This record gives sequence, structure tokens and C-alpha cells, in this order.
Amino acid sequence: MNELDLVAWVRRQARGRRPGLAAGIGDDCAIYRPRGASVDLLLTTDMLIEDVHFRRGQPAERLGHNVLARGLSDIAAMGGDPRICLLSLAVPEWADEAWVKRFYRGLLKLARETGTVLAGGDLARAGKLAGDIVVCGEAPRGEALRRDRARRVDDIFVSGPLGGAAARGYADAIQPRLEFGRTLRGRARAAMDVSDGLALDLHRLCLASGVAAELDEVPMAPGATLDQALHGGEDYELLFTARAAVPGAIRIGRIVNGPAGEVRFRGERLEPRGYDHFSRR
Amino acid sequence: MNELDLVAWVRRQARGRRPGLAAGIGDDCAIYRPRGASVDLLLTTDMLIEDVHFRRGQPAERLGHNVLARGLSDIAAMGGDPRICLLSLAVPEWADEAWVKRFYRGLLKLARETGTVLAGGDLARAGKLAGDIVVCGEAPRGEALRRDRARRVDDIFVSGPLGGAAARGYADAIQPRLEFGRTLRGRARAAMDVSDGLALDLHRLCLASGVAAELDEVPMAPGATLDQALHGGEDYELLFTARAAVPGAIRIGRIVNGPAGEVRFRGERLEPRGYDHFSRR
Repeated sequence: MNELDLVAWVRRQARGRRPGLAAGIGDDCAIYRPRGASVDLLLTTDMLIEDVHFRRGQPAERLGHNVLARGLSDIAAMGGDPRICLLSLAVPEWADEAWVKRFYRGLLKLARETGTVLAGGDLARAGKLAGDIVVCGEAPRGEALRRDRARRVDDIFVSGPLGGAAARGYADAIQPRLEFGRTLRGRARAAMDVSDGLALDLHRLCLASGVAAELDEVPMAPGATLDQALHGGEDYELLFTARAAVPGAIRIGRIVNGPAGEVRFRGERLEPRGYDHFSRR
Repeated sequence: MNELDLVAWVRRQARGRRPGLAAGIGDDCAIYRPRGASVDLLLTTDMLIEDVHFRRGQPAERLGHNVLARGLSDIAAMGGDPRICLLSLAVPEWADEAWVKRFYRGLLKLARETGTVLAGGDLARAGKLAGDIVVCGEAPRGEALRRDRARRVDDIFVSGPLGGAAARGYADAIQPRLEFGRTLRGRARAAMDVSDGLALDLHRLCLASGVAAELDEVPMAPGATLDQALHGGEDYELLFTARAAVPGAIRIGRIVNGPAGEVRFRGERLEPRGYDHFSRR
């Protein structure tokens, strides 16, 4: 059972009355509308687990930065503004007090730079480091971008070239595309971030929208191979569809008729292979 | 460094402009007020980690129930109504598909019973099971209960006898006191849930409020020892202070003058010993 299958199963089980909930399981964030509010709330949660998402030995500041950046990227993908975050952190023996403080400093620096307030969390000891970031953001009511809105006439775009993270051995400090995401409100039809590779994430966007896609070109970051650009993951660029060109974005293809979720490239079906944290063992 | 020290350090580091944030690090939930909303949002996150919070072999349904129940208890402690939840789950080899589905069924049953909608989350593989629940709740604007509001004239109460979870070997399905929590709005002055034992949690409430406490009696659950009632943890009763008696609550003492955080019982200072998930190794 892979992540998509399990997510689909959970979504079926969780069906029912969903007061105030505009979008939920399967998108980058849940969208929730509190009574009377002029904004929609965006809620996302992302794990960072030792030996799954990272290996010991990385600088603590960068890990703290990246755990928040991954959550912020989900907010960017919905065109939102981050407001508050909560961090759950399980700390292993090897991470001493100085390490933990460097980790928090990395997180808090990015929080300040993006107007995000660390508002709480949970702490525990564990055998391996495990973090889970919760980010709560806002978008003007009804304007949050979703991945299930792509339609057949749309062009497909990315906010930048891909494969750079893989080419550099996943050693980057992730830069969430918050500014760019905000400019997509009212312009993009469907959007998500490219966290697990273009092939897998475009497949997910098409599946959620019930459409297929035809890729014309894949912009490669300096030093990246085509395989890294298609399947590398961790680039955190934004992937979106729109009816007209968007300044600063690279057009890579278009939405077409075809089986839901199918992505075609150079005349062949592209395998939705990428960084599936769940099916990978 | 224990949990309280680290939380205090993080709180100092995270200081600054906090628009919309009424309470944050150190309480059961963060309180956030979206623009225009007639409600305050309550946000909480709680981890459940194999070999830290539970041992393998427990029924999957009960674990799924308990991971959500722990988050709901934080909402109850603030007098809130739960709305949506998100689950991050890292699944180890030993948990097969059937196990994971039973885990979700336990969580979703409690979600339905309490009007909580599972709205998203994250999935990964890991060496040990690690879950992190996010619960988003609401309270009428300005009415959420906080742990830092106890004053010297208050009496101290609990919603039920203590030590039962420890006496039964922590094998209970946790019952979050949501109904009781709602009845405390406008009645209680300060409140929190007893997750880590009365001695430690009352110490935390007093520390946050800058007051001391004098315990007169400790109501023991059937089969529980005094030590279990004071230090056992996992009871998830509500601990609160109020100026007048509250139906259904047990009076256990009063707020007094004294060093912030000090709890006295039978003429002696009670050690703030309990289930500190962070300092325990």
C-alpha cells in the first residue's frame, strides 16, 4: 500500500459532515473557515524524521530551518500568508542542549523572516530525532489555491528549474516560495508545491483534478540531470496551472484529456515515481 | 535541562510581535484570533512515540483513540469545542496495513463522537511508530481558559479522582473531559488537564500564574495509591481554580501566598515529580 492509496482510504473513512471545512485530506493544507472570519485558515503538518528525511550530522540550524520551511512551502502552495506554527520535537541522546538550541535558532530565524510566530508544541525524548511542524496560515476568504482545480484548457507552470536539490545531495536550506505563492492568488487555477519530484507531484495534481497532463519540457537546475528534475524531489518550487502566462513562471506543458492522473512526456506515459515517504522502505 | 527549562528558553527566544496571538508557548493550546472571527482558535499538538509513550503490543484501535484523545484533552482544558484534527504518522515495519487501518478506525470513531473532522496530516515510514496529532478547536472570543490566571483567593478543584490510569497500568482508553471543560467557561479562573500527574501539573499551573498552592486532600481512584494519585499521570482529569464551588468537581485545596510554583501538602513542599517526557531518559 503506498501513500496515495492509504490517503484515499482514510479520506473515504473520514467522510461525513464537515462544517467549516472547505478542503481537507489530500491537499497541501486543510482549509478551515471559522465563524465570522474574513479569512480562510490553512493548516498543514510535516514530519522530519532521522534516517527517513535526514541523516545525523547535518547542521542543527539548517534542520531547524528546514522543518519550518517544509510547512511554509505548503502555505505558499495555497497562496497563503503564514501566521503561527507549533513544533513537536522528540530529542535523542546524541542531541545535547547546545544542539537543540541551535535547531530552535534556525527555526526561529526563518519564523521571524516570514512573519510566523512559534506559538507552542510538544517535547519528548526518543531514540531518534523526530520533529513535526504545524503551520497555520491565512488566505482571503475563498482565494486559497487548491490542487484539485486544474481544467483541460490550462497551461502548466513551475516557479523555477527542478532537480537542484537532488544534484546538490539534498544539502540545501529550503526556500519556501511564499512571495510567489501570494502572486498566484486569482491567477492560478490549481497549485501545489514540488516536494517529492515533478513526476509524482504532477500526477497527484492531475489525479486530484481528474485530468491528465502533457509535459513539453522540464526545466533543469544547473548540474541536474533530467531524472533528478523529474524525480528528485525537495525542490519546493511551486507547480500550478493557469489560463494565461504568469510573470516569472516557466511553462512546462498543458492539461489534456486522458485518464485521471496520467502524465505524458515525449510521447510516453511518465511513471509517477518520486519520493514517496510511505511506500519507500 | 528539563522540559520546563527548555520551554522557558524557547519562549524567551520566540518573543516579539505576536499579532492575533492571545496565548502561546507554555499553555495547553495556543490561542489565535483570525481577523473578524467571533471565536478564538485553539491549536494543540501531541506526540505519541513507541517506547516513549507506549509499548508495542497495545491494541491499534486504542492507540488511535488515545492519540486523538490526548489532543482533545488539551482542548477540554481550555473549555473549547474541537473542530478539526490532522495526524502525522510514521509507520514502522511491524505495523502492517491491517494494523494501520485499525489505528485510524480507533481515531475516527472518537473523532465522530466528539464532532472532530480529520482534515489532513502527513505519512512516512520510520523504524518506530511515531504519531503527532494536531487539534484545532474554538472557544467564544475571550473565553478560553488558561493556566496562568490563578489568583490567591481561588479554590483548587479536579474533575475526578486521580491515579486510576497508573493503577491500571496505563491501559485505558483516554476519555477527554470535553463536556466538563465547556461547563467551566466563565466559571473557572485557571485550568489545565492532568496529563503528567497532579504534583507536576499543579506546579506548572502555579508557576504560570505566579502563585503557590496548598493541597488539602488528594482524591484517589479505586485501587490507586497516594503516590499514583500525585505522580502517576495519564488521568486526563481537569485541574482548575475557581472562586466558587463547581457542580461535579472535587475541591482539593487553595491558592496561597508563596514562591511561584510551590505546592504544599501535609505541611511539606511537594516535589514537582511526574511524567516529564523530556527530562526522563
